[in-house]
Amino acid sequence: MVRLVISRCIAMSIIWFENPQQEPAMSDLLFLSISLLSGLLAILVALYTYRVVMRADEGDKRMHEVSRLIQDGADSFIKIQYRILTFFTLFLAVVIAIVFVDYGIPIAISYIIGSFASMGAGYIGLAVATQANRRTAAAAAEGGLGPAFKIAFRSGSVMGLMIAGIALVGLSALYLMWFVIFPGIAAPFLWEMITGFSFGASTVALFAKAGGGIFTKTADMSADIVGKIEQHIPEDDPRNPAAIADAVGDNVGDVAGTGADIFDSNVAAILAAALLGAGLDATFALPYAFGLLPLVIAALGTIASVIGVYLVRPNEQDDPGPALNRGTYITTILFGVLVVAVILILGIDIVIAASAIFGLLAGVFIGFTSDVFTNDKGLFGFQPVRNMVENAEKSTANLILSGYSYGLLSAVPSVIGVIVALVASFILGSTTTSLGLGGWMGGIYAVAIAAVGLLATNGLTMSSDSYGPIVDNARGIIEQSNASEEAIIACDKLDAAGNTAKAITKGFAIGSAAISVLALFAAFVEAAEMLIGEEIIVNIADPFILAGAFIGALVPITFTAMLILGVDRNAGRMIEEIRRQFRVDPGILEGTSKPDYDKCIEIATSGAIRELMPSTIIVIGVTILTGSILGLEALGGYLGGAVLVGFIMALLMSNAGGAWDNTKKMIESPEYDHDHPRYDQIHRNSVRGDMVGDPFKDTAGPSINTLLVVISLTATLFLPVIAHIHQWLSGMF
Amino acid sequence: MVRLVISRCIAMSIIWFENPQQEPAMSDLLFLSISLLSGLLAILVALYTYRVVMRADEGDKRMHEVSRLIQDGADSFIKIQYRILTFFTLFLAVVIAIVFVDYGIPIAISYIIGSFASMGAGYIGLAVATQANRRTAAAAAEGGLGPAFKIAFRSGSVMGLMIAGIALVGLSALYLMWFVIFPGIAAPFLWEMITGFSFGASTVALFAKAGGGIFTKTADMSADIVGKIEQHIPEDDPRNPAAIADAVGDNVGDVAGTGADIFDSNVAAILAAALLGAGLDATFALPYAFGLLPLVIAALGTIASVIGVYLVRPNEQDDPGPALNRGTYITTILFGVLVVAVILILGIDIVIAASAIFGLLAGVFIGFTSDVFTNDKGLFGFQPVRNMVENAEKSTANLILSGYSYGLLSAVPSVIGVIVALVASFILGSTTTSLGLGGWMGGIYAVAIAAVGLLATNGLTMSSDSYGPIVDNARGIIEQSNASEEAIIACDKLDAAGNTAKAITKGFAIGSAAISVLALFAAFVEAAEMLIGEEIIVNIADPFILAGAFIGALVPITFTAMLILGVDRNAGRMIEEIRRQFRVDPGILEGTSKPDYDKCIEIATSGAIRELMPSTIIVIGVTILTGSILGLEALGGYLGGAVLVGFIMALLMSNAGGAWDNTKKMIESPEYDHDHPRYDQIHRNSVRGDMVGDPFKDTAGPSINTLLVVISLTATLFLPVIAHIHQWLSGMF
Repeated sequence: MVRLVISRCIAMSIIWFENPQQEPAMSDLLFLSISLLSGLLAILVALYTYRVVMRADEGDKRMHEVSRLIQDGADSFIKIQYRILTFFTLFLAVVIAIVFVDYGIPIAISYIIGSFASMGAGYIGLAVATQANRRTAAAAAEGGLGPAFKIAFRSGSVMGLMIAGIALVGLSALYLMWFVIFPGIAAPFLWEMITGFSFGASTVALFAKAGGGIFTKTADMSADIVGKIEQHIPEDDPRNPAAIADAVGDNVGDVAGTGADIFDSNVAAILAAALLGAGLDATFALPYAFGLLPLVIAALGTIASVIGVYLVRPNEQDDPGPALNRGTYITTILFGVLVVAVILILGIDIVIAASAIFGLLAGVFIGFTSDVFTNDKGLFGFQPVRNMVENAEKSTANLILSGYSYGLLSAVPSVIGVIVALVASFILGSTTTSLGLGGWMGGIYAVAIAAVGLLATNGLTMSSDSYGPIVDNARGIIEQSNASEEAIIACDKLDAAGNTAKAITKGFAIGSAAISVLALFAAFVEAAEMLIGEEIIVNIADPFILAGAFIGALVPITFTAMLILGVDRNAGRMIEEIRRQFRVDPGILEGTSKPDYDKCIEIATSGAIRELMPSTIIVIGVTILTGSILGLEALGGYLGGAVLVGFIMALLMSNAGGAWDNTKKMIESPEYDHDHPRYDQIHRNSVRGDMVGDPFKDTAGPSINTLLVVISLTATLFLPVIAHIHQWLSGMF
Repeated sequence: MVRLVISRCIAMSIIWFENPQQEPAMSDLLFLSISLLSGLLAILVALYTYRVVMRADEGDKRMHEVSRLIQDGADSFIKIQYRILTFFTLFLAVVIAIVFVDYGIPIAISYIIGSFASMGAGYIGLAVATQANRRTAAAAAEGGLGPAFKIAFRSGSVMGLMIAGIALVGLSALYLMWFVIFPGIAAPFLWEMITGFSFGASTVALFAKAGGGIFTKTADMSADIVGKIEQHIPEDDPRNPAAIADAVGDNVGDVAGTGADIFDSNVAAILAAALLGAGLDATFALPYAFGLLPLVIAALGTIASVIGVYLVRPNEQDDPGPALNRGTYITTILFGVLVVAVILILGIDIVIAASAIFGLLAGVFIGFTSDVFTNDKGLFGFQPVRNMVENAEKSTANLILSGYSYGLLSAVPSVIGVIVALVASFILGSTTTSLGLGGWMGGIYAVAIAAVGLLATNGLTMSSDSYGPIVDNARGIIEQSNASEEAIIACDKLDAAGNTAKAITKGFAIGSAAISVLALFAAFVEAAEMLIGEEIIVNIADPFILAGAFIGALVPITFTAMLILGVDRNAGRMIEEIRRQFRVDPGILEGTSKPDYDKCIEIATSGAIRELMPSTIIVIGVTILTGSILGLEALGGYLGGAVLVGFIMALLMSNAGGAWDNTKKMIESPEYDHDHPRYDQIHRNSVRGDMVGDPFKDTAGPSINTLLVVISLTATLFLPVIAHIHQWLSGMF
């Protein structure tokens, strides 16, 4: 097999060079090489960084012990989850191979590769994060802020660059592979096979993000209820059998989950643009393949990210926040310059570069908005969190109602940001008169390019994001060790910068998924039109299509409810286990014998998947059924309804959750008047707000993005199957 | 003017009778007469009932005193609100008269009449309710359950029959009037003038429902915070300056608000069907006017309601719940029989009767669903409220999260019910081959008829609903008087039946508004096509239209947030006033001097309107702006996005709020284990859940219906203006 591919590759290269009339193929090869090499560069830099970080000092014995437990816990989680996911992947691959009349096998293979690529990226990120925390703590204890920041950020960049690199290498290698194995096949069909890769990445991301979210909140809630409330032992006490599960949870949700989420959005954005571009290529004779251009744009963003990562270094003892921001600015500007230069050199309409930059600006704007709604400063006197602190002083209900209202309001600017990017890039792409661009298809392609642009610098964004949980853990470790006061202050500063980065990334992830889904929506419509040879009009004034839109709107709603109720049920199981351990071995509470941490991790992990599996299968099933029964246009309405409601729900839940969290932090901070006559009451109110917000922001909110990508890809991937069933059903009535 | 109308009327009648070729006009006259007479019948029965009820015994002095304070408070509220609303109405009427090139004056006049009709209905309902409560209490004290039920239900029926009657009389009288004044004008234009009537009803309903919602929660919250928390005086203590405002609030929100809400939905549903029917009439030559048929269907429902109201009487000392249900069943069946008979006699396709019945069944189903999600029994082992009680035993956060999740889930069956009614009536209407029906327009018309059918029996539904607050108040009055234990038990039974009726009506109101809005959506599209002479395709795959849908989706979100935050701000003002009264006159707390109740009512009333006015103007403005800038098709997307998100939000908030309320009631009920070691804690958790739920279910949730109707009518009414501005803007760029 490998030999066949290599020999065909060589044969193809010879054909390309010997046939000058096939000049476009030359640019294809160029584009693919750029993508492949940039991807490899990112992966190599990530691996090199990993080696450098691993050589750093691991700290004293106590640091090592605490960190080791978390690392082992994360390993258990990964082992259990990946075992189940492997079965799921192989099962679904067999289904795909069977139900697809054409190209079932290549789609199934792409799907398997996509799943394992996502799992691999998540594994590496988690492995680095759980080993970097003690090294960051050690660096803080010995060298202070500067060296600690360097370790933490470099470690975070392993995950960031890895997912950017794997996306590029995966997509371009698969394209080359299917091109070589199926010579002469049209580009749109090649990309349809590769849709399997994106589908694999997204289903794994859904498990990583939503499953991780259920895991982390299960552990958190159970540890608190049995530990703090029933047994009156402190939070994070090592006697609590759920303590390690709780610590693992942060890494599982924030590192592996967010990484998988950004990875799948990035792949989906590139794929949507490629599908639309391949449609343009098929319609017009062009000097360059629009189908491969998205890979080049993503590659430029990855190069900018690699450079950006190495330029992030704070001044000694400074607040590291500005350094992180500097990294973002530099990478953004660098990407802008690169993309304009390359588009000009290639002689492609500058509109493409402008759309990519619009997308990136929209992403930055959404991240900024999330920050305004969740930080303690606000903007221009509009201070949601400060107002929520005042409401916490009144009552729990006032705090919850105001947080919920600000969460709703936070959707407004973000949605408007996405609308502006959408409409502006569409206008640019549709009014230009360049070869191949212009008109409806040109406009839609520009929208897809905006999505690619938004995600192009994901290598850097994800580096900043992964940095957060690493310093958060490092802070926990250093508190439990015998480090100096200075080291703790350094870690606090690192942590504060990490929290802001996390808030921004959360908004960024939601915005990027939303615009990727819009691009996928357009790609779905194009693909459906190509398939049935008729225009697809998603006219929601048609009752069938409106019914589809309503069903779509119910999907994120139901998914959210099932996740939150799932946490509740799963916590019930884990509470039983913790109580059982305390009952069976009284030595645990006395501190004389070790609790069985692994058992709790296993319950949280398998329970999370058990809660999630039905929802996932239902979501995929409802998507296929809606299209099969109501038709492809109603399926378009379904996707539209889902993204309308889902985007708003995701923003509401993430931002309300973040705002409640920071309200509690403000009330706990030294600036707040701790001598207030009702301080205990007020603090308890804020804790309740945070408890409501936890599953909002860590379980449901950010999972909705991934859900939207999964259903969009389900519609696009299973399109031929759905059209077939619908035709058969229509014939029956 | 009056003489002119009368003389023209006579002239028209002569023309009708003298011109046999104008036979269709004969049926027009018949249809209008049926509608007008049924409406007058309902109003006369309501007035007669009012006289009968007012003759009943008013109870002892103590009952009279308490009730009188509430009655006076309600009067103050009405006076202040209606003064502001009159200014608002007249101002908007002038705007309408100016901006409309054609028929500005008749539209403005229709608008003024619609506004005052809604205010009048609300006034009568409130007047009856606040006088009936003491009479119900007196009947319970003297005659027991049976007589008390009779008084309460008959009083409720005054409001119910009044709104049904005013809708019929208003619409048919306006039609006749404009027909006579503008002889020879086409029916669609007549209905467009009458759109003003519906717009007036809806804007007043928005103030009544949302303003009433802000009022009642402002009073509730402020009374609790200053009274219970700061001064430690009991709830409802007459020393509290906000006590009467609090009691008035229930009547204001539940009687006047819900009445205005159902009234406006009913008028909007009939109007939408009439607009679509008039379009059918204009296209085909038909023996009967489809434009007037909706009035006949609504008239049949009103006749069924009048009969149903007089058949509701419980067996002596029985639970009155079955009697209420019996009334609903009888009215529903009677309506079904009448509508089938009349449609058959007229020789119109039976499909029309089937659609009307589908609509009614959908309404009953949605009401039933709301009940399952909020009562303490559940269905088939699915027991949301019981599960929430278990969560209340864990923590406040668990209770809030589970209530929120069940609220989300409660949207699923209701939305599916609406979809089924929508698609089924469309299929029926589009596949029939009767004259005029069939095809796209026939299908859409059948959908609008389903909306009319759903609301046809609103006379009875609203009677059961108004009954609720009357017995609720009666229970409060009887507790404060020296009545026997038996009388209190009788009132408790009446109250329990009232709560179930209220839960069902709340769901019913949301469902009816949703399907009315869908009918209005179709009417908007038809009207827009007629206006610009081109097909309107609301294709959400088009970025401009998708942008419109996103903006529309933001409208209910923003409105909800502004309402909830508005309650918070308004309560702040009222808390200041209560504190001021206590400070200035210490005699109030000692019980030696009377607090200034009216001042609190004034603050709550004018504050509510002050919070609501900007939102209302913004909502109307954004609707007009979206259409003017992005075009009519994007305005279609806007309406679609608003109804998708708004319908789900309304169900979520109403049902979650109801479930939290009943969770608290279950924990307070004698069946719950009051000796639980943490009972106080658990009860406090449930109180917090109820506090979060109050603005959900009484302020934001039910206002969203009305909001959706208002924006749909804004789009339809201002269509020519919007089209004009858009054309002008398009010409500029």
